[in-house]
Amino acid sequence: MTLDDDRYVIGVDYGTLSGRALVVRVSDGAEMGSAVLEYPHGVVDSVMPGSGRRLPPDWALQVPSDYVEVLRTAVPAAVESAGVDPAHVIGIATDFTACTMVPTLADGTPLCDTDDLRDEPHAYVKLWKHHAAQGQADRITELARERGEGWLARYGGVISSEWEFAKGLQLLEEAPQVYAAMEHWVEAADWIVWQLCDRYVRNACTAGYKGIRQDGAYPSRDYLAALNPDFAGFVDDKLDHPIGELGTVAGRLSARAAAWTGLPEGIPVAVGNVDAHVSAPAADAVAPGQMVAIMGTSTCHVMSSDVLAEVPGMCGVVDGGIVTGLYGYEAGQSGVGDIFGWFVANQVPKTYEQDAHAAGVGVHEHLTALAAEQPIGAHGLVALDWWSGNRSVLVDHDLSGLVMGMTLTTRPEDVYRALLESTAFGARVIVETFAASGVPVTEFIVTGGLQKNALLMQIYADVLDMPLSVVTSTQGPALGSALHAAVAAGAYGDVPTAAKAMGRREQAAFTPIAENVAAYDRLYAVYRELHDHFGRTSGAMRTLKAIRREAHA
Amino acid sequence: MTLDDDRYVIGVDYGTLSGRALVVRVSDGAEMGSAVLEYPHGVVDSVMPGSGRRLPPDWALQVPSDYVEVLRTAVPAAVESAGVDPAHVIGIATDFTACTMVPTLADGTPLCDTDDLRDEPHAYVKLWKHHAAQGQADRITELARERGEGWLARYGGVISSEWEFAKGLQLLEEAPQVYAAMEHWVEAADWIVWQLCDRYVRNACTAGYKGIRQDGAYPSRDYLAALNPDFAGFVDDKLDHPIGELGTVAGRLSARAAAWTGLPEGIPVAVGNVDAHVSAPAADAVAPGQMVAIMGTSTCHVMSSDVLAEVPGMCGVVDGGIVTGLYGYEAGQSGVGDIFGWFVANQVPKTYEQDAHAAGVGVHEHLTALAAEQPIGAHGLVALDWWSGNRSVLVDHDLSGLVMGMTLTTRPEDVYRALLESTAFGARVIVETFAASGVPVTEFIVTGGLQKNALLMQIYADVLDMPLSVVTSTQGPALGSALHAAVAAGAYGDVPTAAKAMGRREQAAFTPIAENVAAYDRLYAVYRELHDHFGRTSGAMRTLKAIRREAHA
Repeated sequence: MTLDDDRYVIGVDYGTLSGRALVVRVSDGAEMGSAVLEYPHGVVDSVMPGSGRRLPPDWALQVPSDYVEVLRTAVPAAVESAGVDPAHVIGIATDFTACTMVPTLADGTPLCDTDDLRDEPHAYVKLWKHHAAQGQADRITELARERGEGWLARYGGVISSEWEFAKGLQLLEEAPQVYAAMEHWVEAADWIVWQLCDRYVRNACTAGYKGIRQDGAYPSRDYLAALNPDFAGFVDDKLDHPIGELGTVAGRLSARAAAWTGLPEGIPVAVGNVDAHVSAPAADAVAPGQMVAIMGTSTCHVMSSDVLAEVPGMCGVVDGGIVTGLYGYEAGQSGVGDIFGWFVANQVPKTYEQDAHAAGVGVHEHLTALAAEQPIGAHGLVALDWWSGNRSVLVDHDLSGLVMGMTLTTRPEDVYRALLESTAFGARVIVETFAASGVPVTEFIVTGGLQKNALLMQIYADVLDMPLSVVTSTQGPALGSALHAAVAAGAYGDVPTAAKAMGRREQAAFTPIAENVAAYDRLYAVYRELHDHFGRTSGAMRTLKAIRREAHA
Repeated sequence: MTLDDDRYVIGVDYGTLSGRALVVRVSDGAEMGSAVLEYPHGVVDSVMPGSGRRLPPDWALQVPSDYVEVLRTAVPAAVESAGVDPAHVIGIATDFTACTMVPTLADGTPLCDTDDLRDEPHAYVKLWKHHAAQGQADRITELARERGEGWLARYGGVISSEWEFAKGLQLLEEAPQVYAAMEHWVEAADWIVWQLCDRYVRNACTAGYKGIRQDGAYPSRDYLAALNPDFAGFVDDKLDHPIGELGTVAGRLSARAAAWTGLPEGIPVAVGNVDAHVSAPAADAVAPGQMVAIMGTSTCHVMSSDVLAEVPGMCGVVDGGIVTGLYGYEAGQSGVGDIFGWFVANQVPKTYEQDAHAAGVGVHEHLTALAAEQPIGAHGLVALDWWSGNRSVLVDHDLSGLVMGMTLTTRPEDVYRALLESTAFGARVIVETFAASGVPVTEFIVTGGLQKNALLMQIYADVLDMPLSVVTSTQGPALGSALHAAVAAGAYGDVPTAAKAMGRREQAAFTPIAENVAAYDRLYAVYRELHDHFGRTSGAMRTLKAIRREAHA
């Protein structure tokens, strides 16, 4: 082992339910050891800790001390499991779910950790999937349309209820005293970095994608006042803060954080990042045209480009949003793996469970094996993958799922296969929309839990008619963070160079099969017809959602 | 008991799998006793009896001696169970599935009972659901359209593969030697009467609905020759025969049939009839505007009217097709109960089966109870009830099933309820189409197995916004036949008079609830939009069926 081979970095990936620390060798990205901590409070979405107070529907909170607990337990455990000397760790970096927001005092103390506000739900972290600010989001979008705000097109035309402004406006309007007490409205991605190095640096990625920062500016005071006069100072008073580019140093590990983690005091701490975006360098896929799809319950697509384009229905484009110097694009499918999960939980008969059990496999594996046996199109089905609405490119969460083509001979594996295919068709719409907007996709790279389904991967390759690469690390985001730590520590000059050395993927692990491509072209034409009809022409799905809401009210 | 109260008639209902004999009191329609015989050979749809020869797909044959066996066993057993003196039986009548065809010699001997043809599939009975003559049916319809044949509109514009001409043309083209040997092409409804009274009388109902007999004439020799030169003589040589109106006497019970049945020789035998159509008088529902829906795996709608109209997409209109002196209309939904059955077999998870078992009910009952708990529209779903295609009013078996509106919170009982509702919406399209064509429906009367589902019945009442009556006899067709026997025996002057005395229904057993009607009007608007889009505008479903066929080929 040379000296160069004995330097390590730590990547910490903060997910929805747990935090994972990974120890990575700087020279080649080898994963030396890891450890996970489930958040003690998990997702707070029904009852408040302590008070036992019930939360309204669509709320999702977290407890910030849980994040610190990951630093105190998972990081030392990962170093221990790696068997490396902590003195050889030269840097640390983190990635986080987003947009996940912490309201704090001037020194970074979360409001929920103050005696006055311990029982106030609005004083806690609003997790990305807190969806109770839809009314505010609708007003934000509507007003921007009316006023012709230029930044709206950078978000495909719609501002999400998940993002910083909608959640902030909800806080103001539902709990003005908490809003008044709040001195910073901080992305958790930046808050955790603040805990590590005692400095608050706002990362360029979330500031752009979630904070409506474009070309160095935010929505104007005028616009904010028109939303709500008391919101006029939101940017100036709560949000604005010096920006840090991805891969740069936010600060140095504090004595306090060194004590928590067992790592050397003073090592560089990288600027915060987002779990999806950090996966691109982990796959060594940060060049223009390389679209990385993080496929799990939902899919997030990220891609860099040297051109700035307005792609209809994208989630956003941010200068330096993935790597400094390129425009980072994001798109998404709001339901993918969770649709397959819904099917298995709700539409699979007992005999299939029994057969799966007898074969010693899970129900997903059993259905996949059965689905793989049929020629393309033999099931006669097409589905629309909109169980959770459509994020890109229609940006409409009042759209819903559809299955068409059923006969009395339709079997569960037929519907299952149609659902797999529907998500591939949804991905193709995104890829085609990017291409049509001047941002062509040349390689599709899959990471996340669903890449283990080989049938699904082959379907994507065939439907997209594109070689499909897969990320061989099972800890993509944590690896991506570690790679940012290495750049921050100066081991590499920039993220793309680090990605070449430390990131990895299996290129063209699945290649399109010509006859499958032709067969899917015909099914995709039907999907596209339904997509455009129900997404753009007919109001039927929206009507059904309206009827449903009224019936429940 | 007066002397008038001690007269009885026998109705025999020939279904797809069994024959049922019912002993009925003439004075009031009281059901005294019954017996059933499952056909020894059942439906022959895969392997020929005797030779073991395999049949092609879509074939469905029967063995005519099975029908005689019903006379020999079920009739005496029914009389025995009724405890009546056979000498007090004054008449017998039968109803049959249709179009179910028997190829015979001049004396009525089925070709399959001749030594030469015992192993020839085409020599057997072609059951109504023999669907292997679709190619012939398509040519029959297409040629009629090209030539502007006036009779085509009497069948809603399409001739079915199930009917006499398509099955006859298939026989000619696939087995010309069998066709040559055939001296009569006889509806089983008439063949069984022939066995009872030694006379062949062609009933007006099947001659009209299944035999394209309109205004006393059949399709012309010219037309037939254009279909196939060897088919020119089909009507003259094989089909044409004196017609008997419904409720009249076909003949007298022969000594042979008296010996089979134990009934008095010489009692009147009524003209043959069809199971669906004979249900209308059993419900005392033969007046204009009374639509009788026979709801089982599929639904058949029959209604009489004093006006002759061309209703788009109906199955047919026949002068005297239900009762003499009125025009009898028929329409249908090709899948109803079998869609619910498909769902239970293919899309219901184990826990639901377990809960149903624990509650001591069937899965249908369990799902119905759960589905009944929700407000209308709360599931957010609409389905198209086309698992078996659409018989009326679109007449297209390349249409297929669709469910729309799924979210991750959609439960099995939600989809089940949407399927129940979809069939009610399908019925409403038929009712509205009849009304728009000048044949208004004023009362909807349900008979058949599905009437026992009270939720389904209330849904129909609400969707149709019409009082819904149900037939209280569980043996509607056999009762209807018995009633025809009473008319043939002279106990009543005509079928409507007999229907008043012997038929019965619970009028307005379900009445529409105003707020439900309003709620369903909104869901029906969505159904209707999908119905017209996929049935009339988009070719997507047909494309999927074409892709499916090619993939299987």
